[in-house]
Amino acid sequence: MRSSFVIKGHICYCPEPARLVIAPDSYLLCENGVCRGVFAELPAACRALPFEDMGDRFILPGFVDLHTHAPQSAFRGTGMDRELTEWLTANAFPEESRYADLAYAEKAYRIFTDELVRSATTRAVIFATVHTPATLLLMDLLEQAGLGAYVGKVNMDRNAPPSLCEESAARSAADTAAWLDQCRQRAHKTVRPILTPRFIPSCSDELLTALGELQKQYGVPVQSHLSENLSEIEWVKELCPQAAFYGQAYDRFGLFGTNGPAVMAHCVHSGDAELDLIRRRGVFIAHCPQSNMNLASGIAPVRRCLDRGLRMGLGTDVAGGASLSMLRAVSDAIQCSKLLWRLADTTLAPLKLSEALYLATKGGGAFFGKVGSFEDGYAFDAVVLDDTALPHPQLLAPAQRLERLVYLADDRHICAKWVDGRRLF
Amino acid sequence: MRSSFVIKGHICYCPEPARLVIAPDSYLLCENGVCRGVFAELPAACRALPFEDMGDRFILPGFVDLHTHAPQSAFRGTGMDRELTEWLTANAFPEESRYADLAYAEKAYRIFTDELVRSATTRAVIFATVHTPATLLLMDLLEQAGLGAYVGKVNMDRNAPPSLCEESAARSAADTAAWLDQCRQRAHKTVRPILTPRFIPSCSDELLTALGELQKQYGVPVQSHLSENLSEIEWVKELCPQAAFYGQAYDRFGLFGTNGPAVMAHCVHSGDAELDLIRRRGVFIAHCPQSNMNLASGIAPVRRCLDRGLRMGLGTDVAGGASLSMLRAVSDAIQCSKLLWRLADTTLAPLKLSEALYLATKGGGAFFGKVGSFEDGYAFDAVVLDDTALPHPQLLAPAQRLERLVYLADDRHICAKWVDGRRLF
Repeated sequence: MRSSFVIKGHICYCPEPARLVIAPDSYLLCENGVCRGVFAELPAACRALPFEDMGDRFILPGFVDLHTHAPQSAFRGTGMDRELTEWLTANAFPEESRYADLAYAEKAYRIFTDELVRSATTRAVIFATVHTPATLLLMDLLEQAGLGAYVGKVNMDRNAPPSLCEESAARSAADTAAWLDQCRQRAHKTVRPILTPRFIPSCSDELLTALGELQKQYGVPVQSHLSENLSEIEWVKELCPQAAFYGQAYDRFGLFGTNGPAVMAHCVHSGDAELDLIRRRGVFIAHCPQSNMNLASGIAPVRRCLDRGLRMGLGTDVAGGASLSMLRAVSDAIQCSKLLWRLADTTLAPLKLSEALYLATKGGGAFFGKVGSFEDGYAFDAVVLDDTALPHPQLLAPAQRLERLVYLADDRHICAKWVDGRRLF
Repeated sequence: MRSSFVIKGHICYCPEPARLVIAPDSYLLCENGVCRGVFAELPAACRALPFEDMGDRFILPGFVDLHTHAPQSAFRGTGMDRELTEWLTANAFPEESRYADLAYAEKAYRIFTDELVRSATTRAVIFATVHTPATLLLMDLLEQAGLGAYVGKVNMDRNAPPSLCEESAARSAADTAAWLDQCRQRAHKTVRPILTPRFIPSCSDELLTALGELQKQYGVPVQSHLSENLSEIEWVKELCPQAAFYGQAYDRFGLFGTNGPAVMAHCVHSGDAELDLIRRRGVFIAHCPQSNMNLASGIAPVRRCLDRGLRMGLGTDVAGGASLSMLRAVSDAIQCSKLLWRLADTTLAPLKLSEALYLATKGGGAFFGKVGSFEDGYAFDAVVLDDTALPHPQLLAPAQRLERLVYLADDRHICAKWVDGRRLF
């Protein structure tokens, strides 16, 4: 049984990129885990429901982290003086190799999960590693915590160190099918599997062919990386000369939205043809501004994507990003959009607060279905933010307080959280 | 009497931009408020001194915030969707006008001071407002807290709202002289006055002439803004056609290092001639990366400045910057340098961690004298960082833990602080 209840507070959400709704001292109705709207007065029919008054606090849709790497959480904030491919070899691969050891994985994934619980994130799309037992463990931990997630066992059958390189395409695909079967048996409520070819350099054509088949067979979505770094793009051109651009290297195997939903992280350097294909295929873009700074990748043209009506959300991309905070991702996205406007292209207007908040909630939430808004019918995912510990010498308007929370709040200021109407704390 | 004592921990400091010293489990000697060096073993002569073992924690030089605006702290993180001149009119000036009310100023400046105490900052160069009583109050609060600071009563006699525009150049100068006299009477130990013409658009030639005289008369340094925003630079050209570049508009009045030390915030768009004059005059640059993002100003070419051997530090520039954290300023500086390299000029190599830490400590500290390092003879300004609350699944090397603290720590992880050998907490 999912719960039904009412909470009251300053309710904020973005039904569209250009529209931030702020309903002060209003009521939010949850019926069987689903949002049934925002009301200025408590409807008579709801008076019998459990009620909690959040007082002077802010109630927002839970944030959706559209791209992050759970096993990299351990080394976030270290080894930052490197670009993508060198960083993968020096930082990511050695750490990911440790997850063959389930005891280590449990220790590390518990730290990751605990932190995600305390954060503003309610749902995330997550890379695990190539290791099935550790991936299942991560899924169990997230499910137990009540978080919503897509989690992927990673596929890599080339250009990886021996400790991470799967024996063959066939073996990688067979292990993936076995993992998907185990996921079906587990029948988690909020955590689901997602196919995860790491990126084109890590996956042979044979492997991608097999994964395309698995996507059709199991009806699961797919996540990967796209056009993040200039050297990476050159490498993909060499590896895959038959593709006119990077996105086609996935599309050839149906892994670009044809066989099922797809989310691609970064798209920093996607050209017009790639963006057109992304639009036609309904592929989601996970914009990860902090990672793109730390790895010196550049700044994705978010304005161009919004203007084209692309489906898009924000990701922390830990450990390319050092912070697991989606509030930080919102301000990073705004700041980076201002720099792109200033340094590269004055036709790309900087993101407004409402646009970045939209991306971080409803934009990325759409990958999970009706998620990320307080409109009628949306999953009841919510976080409550408290700015009491951010003292101010005067009374501020709710809109100012909300913006201030985006820039200044951390996990200390998050005091309640629900996923599908189930309260996490 | 200043104190003498020894503390032990993982001692880190940057004597040069390219050199980060990490001395694990070492001893740091303070004699009469002055650092007397780092030792692997406790010298026999020091055994009688008070001793505190900080255990597995990190001891760093206190951070120096080379540019921030105390009265703007109240609106940080709000109204971020604007560029400099519009932002000044809509955000900064209305808030600064409130400091005519001493009761409001006390409320706001206490919040600011409390937060600065809890941060990693030990010294700061601070803009107050045009109001003498509120400025003196801020100086008293900072002195009582034990923080080191230069604080400036702001001068503005044009292009300001009536509530902030001083009656005349003569009146502004007379008020400034009276304020400097009151500062002399107070004889604070760690807080000193600094001349503060807001920027060229706010100050008539007559006022700048008078301030140049005051600098010679009182022997105080000067702070202002330089080449932050393209529209601002155009405006200065119109206002001051006799200056070949922005910096000359200060230099004509001796306010660019001739009459005494000068620090200029930003220098985002300084050309070769301006950078040459900065070098010749020994002017300090306060690089404020987050502010330059938020106000869409751009990214200052820090690499170029370091290569030329310019004197430079980091500033938070609250409320252009939303964060008062100098740790955040360090990671912001690194991230922005990577974007400048990627988007604008691949000859400008991104900043390394040691370089950004150097700027945030010894680089800006030099404006205060021998400050910002643990070399013999430096003021004993120190902060202790504790990463216990940032759990990790494995043992990390001290260098990794330090980098991680820079990216992940906030005031929760700062557990002790000294200025001139006096402990604040």
